[in-house]
Amino acid sequence: MSHIYLNSSMLKQLNHTVQEYVSDWMHSQQFHFNHTKLAASPAAMKTNSTTFVVTLAIAFVLYRWIFPATRKQKLSAVKFELSLPEAAQKHWKGKRLQSFTGTSTDPSQRIQCYCPATGQVLGSFPSMSELDIDNLVSKAAKAQLKWRKTSIEERIKVLVSLQDHILENQDSIARVACRDSGKTMLDASMGEILVTLEKLQWIIKHGKKALQPSKRPGPTNFFMKWYKGAEVRYEPLGVVGALVSWNYPFHNLLGPIIAAIFTGNAIVIKCSEQVVWSSEVFIGMVKNCLEACGFDPDLVQLCYCSPPNANDNTANYYSSHPGLKHLTFIGSKPVAHHVLAAASKSLTPVCVELGGKDALICLDSVKDLKALSSIIMRGTFQSSGQNCIGIERVIVSAKHYKEMVGILEKRIGTLRLGSDIDNLEDVDMGAMISDNRFEQLESMIQNAVGQGARLLHGGSRYKHPNYPQGHYFQPTLLVDVSPDMDIAQNEVFGPVLTVMRAEDTLDCIRLANSAPFGLGGSVFGNDYAECNYVANHLQTGNVAINDFATFYVCQLPFGGIGGSGYGKFGGEEGLTGLCNAKSVCYDKLPFVSTQIPKPLDYPIKSNRSAWKFVKSFNTGSYTRSTWVRIKSLLSLAKNAN
Amino acid sequence: MSHIYLNSSMLKQLNHTVQEYVSDWMHSQQFHFNHTKLAASPAAMKTNSTTFVVTLAIAFVLYRWIFPATRKQKLSAVKFELSLPEAAQKHWKGKRLQSFTGTSTDPSQRIQCYCPATGQVLGSFPSMSELDIDNLVSKAAKAQLKWRKTSIEERIKVLVSLQDHILENQDSIARVACRDSGKTMLDASMGEILVTLEKLQWIIKHGKKALQPSKRPGPTNFFMKWYKGAEVRYEPLGVVGALVSWNYPFHNLLGPIIAAIFTGNAIVIKCSEQVVWSSEVFIGMVKNCLEACGFDPDLVQLCYCSPPNANDNTANYYSSHPGLKHLTFIGSKPVAHHVLAAASKSLTPVCVELGGKDALICLDSVKDLKALSSIIMRGTFQSSGQNCIGIERVIVSAKHYKEMVGILEKRIGTLRLGSDIDNLEDVDMGAMISDNRFEQLESMIQNAVGQGARLLHGGSRYKHPNYPQGHYFQPTLLVDVSPDMDIAQNEVFGPVLTVMRAEDTLDCIRLANSAPFGLGGSVFGNDYAECNYVANHLQTGNVAINDFATFYVCQLPFGGIGGSGYGKFGGEEGLTGLCNAKSVCYDKLPFVSTQIPKPLDYPIKSNRSAWKFVKSFNTGSYTRSTWVRIKSLLSLAKNAN
Repeated sequence: MSHIYLNSSMLKQLNHTVQEYVSDWMHSQQFHFNHTKLAASPAAMKTNSTTFVVTLAIAFVLYRWIFPATRKQKLSAVKFELSLPEAAQKHWKGKRLQSFTGTSTDPSQRIQCYCPATGQVLGSFPSMSELDIDNLVSKAAKAQLKWRKTSIEERIKVLVSLQDHILENQDSIARVACRDSGKTMLDASMGEILVTLEKLQWIIKHGKKALQPSKRPGPTNFFMKWYKGAEVRYEPLGVVGALVSWNYPFHNLLGPIIAAIFTGNAIVIKCSEQVVWSSEVFIGMVKNCLEACGFDPDLVQLCYCSPPNANDNTANYYSSHPGLKHLTFIGSKPVAHHVLAAASKSLTPVCVELGGKDALICLDSVKDLKALSSIIMRGTFQSSGQNCIGIERVIVSAKHYKEMVGILEKRIGTLRLGSDIDNLEDVDMGAMISDNRFEQLESMIQNAVGQGARLLHGGSRYKHPNYPQGHYFQPTLLVDVSPDMDIAQNEVFGPVLTVMRAEDTLDCIRLANSAPFGLGGSVFGNDYAECNYVANHLQTGNVAINDFATFYVCQLPFGGIGGSGYGKFGGEEGLTGLCNAKSVCYDKLPFVSTQIPKPLDYPIKSNRSAWKFVKSFNTGSYTRSTWVRIKSLLSLAKNAN
Repeated sequence: MSHIYLNSSMLKQLNHTVQEYVSDWMHSQQFHFNHTKLAASPAAMKTNSTTFVVTLAIAFVLYRWIFPATRKQKLSAVKFELSLPEAAQKHWKGKRLQSFTGTSTDPSQRIQCYCPATGQVLGSFPSMSELDIDNLVSKAAKAQLKWRKTSIEERIKVLVSLQDHILENQDSIARVACRDSGKTMLDASMGEILVTLEKLQWIIKHGKKALQPSKRPGPTNFFMKWYKGAEVRYEPLGVVGALVSWNYPFHNLLGPIIAAIFTGNAIVIKCSEQVVWSSEVFIGMVKNCLEACGFDPDLVQLCYCSPPNANDNTANYYSSHPGLKHLTFIGSKPVAHHVLAAASKSLTPVCVELGGKDALICLDSVKDLKALSSIIMRGTFQSSGQNCIGIERVIVSAKHYKEMVGILEKRIGTLRLGSDIDNLEDVDMGAMISDNRFEQLESMIQNAVGQGARLLHGGSRYKHPNYPQGHYFQPTLLVDVSPDMDIAQNEVFGPVLTVMRAEDTLDCIRLANSAPFGLGGSVFGNDYAECNYVANHLQTGNVAINDFATFYVCQLPFGGIGGSGYGKFGGEEGLTGLCNAKSVCYDKLPFVSTQIPKPLDYPIKSNRSAWKFVKSFNTGSYTRSTWVRIKSLLSLAKNAN
């Protein structure tokens, strides 16, 4: 993938990439196998493992050869149209906001949407009422009654159609997301599209297994264990809700929708008032998809309203709606308190995904600082730092601190701000969603400098010559930051690269754990055991080793602890969390079932005998001594009449 | 277990019970095996399965023979003393309350404890202050720092010691629980002791596996799936909390303690002000156990205080304590709102276990109504109906309705009220915890009668001639109840057998789902497929088929939906729920790691190329067409410089 244009042999080579990966892996496995078990006959083992691999390969080829039709049929996608507004076009010439107030809602309760990168007006939408929400919930509930009965294959058909549609409409989708959020097309390609496609494909591939009934061990009781079976079955909850943040208008909206649809639920999803325009486009896409697949588009509903104020309590009405059986909240701590207080009235379970203060740890064993700096730059400045698992702190162990700061200082100077939505210029970083936190950011940075941090670049807002109405903040590099500074304790959620110096590996862990958040983190080093040790000691819900944010891409269950919230979405837990996990106990043997023993049957003949009976039963059931068990069985018999 | 006293052959027979079960099962398995696969050679199969079974048996015997020492060593229990107050003695002559007011707290903020069955005074305790709670949490936190590093084997040692201790002290433990709650010794033997022993043994046997890191599939991305590994690791949270109800003072207290200890956490547990006296005895038992095993008894702490009122906010202080990383709440809906509102301030996750309105469904296919009536009686009147998974509604399908009502009417007349704590008399049902809900119960019953229900027995409070200060309510039988009655919609939590008539199986389901709770339920019938259909259509978190409440005994994850709360305790989920489930993503292959591709490295050379690069990457990763993949790999290469 370096400076070579495609030639005739290149195509061949690319086609073989997969085979190479596999054969490399096979070799390494065989290497380990042979080296760890030298005591046994290596020749025989080699033969055995070769046979095994060959058999597997043949079986796979046969399977693909015999069942291609079935597989294709299962995963057939339905085509449908994407309805796009005019502003979704490239080179759209929208008017810019005239008197810009910095808020996105106007007094008449219409929500004003505009592009934060250019200030172009996208449209306005009426804030929904409590009655509107009731209607959305009841429509969704009606659609769910049919949908809950669909097979997993029917649901997968919808997801596969969505997946194909997204792949074919990457440009339009990204442009819509960028117009409403001000990010760059590159940021959208990864943060919006790639992660959504991965979520879709992961569920298409692994979702069915996650929802299969889960067999459990059953009781250990000596008398019951022989005939009692136990399992957990996963059933749809009904209509679920989600309140999602504005930073990834496509991905954050699609994520909960995909999970809800797959688990047989309907969803009424509340988007941020900052991104109503794009959310309307995206919900339309899902509705079109459902309709094209032959299902009721009412299954998904979009809700939006102004933030709660003295005259408008609609947002809390949504959060405490008894028709919503589960809420996923992705947002900030202050809003979380409101949502949780509202949900406590309706006893609705909430999955709470708040901010983070994720650390990237660079250990002394890191070999390639240049390569790592590229990851740091992307992890920090993607979406202008408006990323809940963005790198908020870079913690560098003593050996590399000075050199890493030097590299970052050089690189940060090259970053250009602006908009690439219409491909007019090459830029590195887009706008922020609004300017309402600029003052806070500037003062946080200034305070840190006052306490001894060194500001090597940026530090304040930026008035872009081409887009004076855009919300830009300079890429900022702040080094020598210590845990006592405000900027090390609070989420920045902006383009600020904060570097902290650690004495050694243990100090890296101490520093990483010094903030009141616990979302994610990453550790880089050349010694896997050391990296793993660090991973095990980070007080966070997610850790990536030698990579950035891959725990999220991987579809591992995602969620934080402490100040970052609780609950998990994504992965298996994200699916089962939207289900009624029903615990079912049954008789395994057709000829055995529970009867109330005579001494315990009302009316109790003798309380003394009944007590002795159960006492012996307990002892016989749970003693670890064979002799005591025999004695208790004896007593059981004695008291059994 | 019928009218046979033990003779010489009986012992032999009992000793063979297990073997019989197993061989029966084996035969049935072989039967199915042979009958479902007749096409294959039955003789060969029989030989194969016999060989398989014999091999297994030999392997098991060898294992037990070779490793007995290791197993014994692992599970060696430590002996310790149980400190018992005078009132725990049999035939204790405690003074009775003189002027009984019906509340258990007096104006000077001391909590008054007494026996609800006899009115005997057990003692008084000072309501704890906010400062007290801070102290408990900080002591527990200190002890946890060491405890979190203990091995699973060390934790199992504590549980095994507890298990043996409980087995050997069943009488004392039951008597303490009965004195404080007024229940009968028989109720305690099952509801307090059996279930606690099962929880202990289940965790001892299956807990380790539940806390092992859980391997996950990792990403499906075509380029990443070869080298990215993904797993979830379970780590202790720190100090957890639990607010537990008074109905099972031993079991409800021990359950959260056992789970917390096993998962490496400390616990500050808040008992109900109704059962402080017994909770002090039981927490002392656990502390003695920890100390005897060589660990810090500060790991478990008991907290109690008056319910929140204008002058005392201590209970809410506890629920919003930032030192508690997780709360398990077992109690009622009104209290849940308070706890959740408090916990929303500290962003503490809460597992919410509220009441239920559990239905027992008797289908037309039931064969033995007499045997089923015994289960109905126990399931309804155990602990005087103060059981969150007690039977609150008996729904009988048309065919058996009249006969079942007749059987129940006959049986209910035989029930005797009183106390068997000191074995002075034979009784069937004990007292209730207090008389503060008697008026509500009586009016609920009267209202139902006003709406057409027939009251066949009981219906009001009962002044016991021997225990005039006791809180007794008559065993009540109310039939012809319909869903529109208050008593069919609200939890009774008392000794009221409510019978509803259903037209058929579908009507059984409709009636069962007509109450705003969703905790448990059970279905009885002779047709397993029909029972299973009903189980799948009950809107509850737990279902037992042809048995009562076994889902709870089984250690399946336990929890309700809807008005019964959310979250699970018990089983695997109960253990992992007390952990930080950390999602970790790592590189599987030592020679592959992620690098930022050139087109995406800051500063971006060409936004257009970068976009095309990721677009091709997305297409190559997620397309299902080989041809499209080849084209996208081609484009990837084109844009890779």
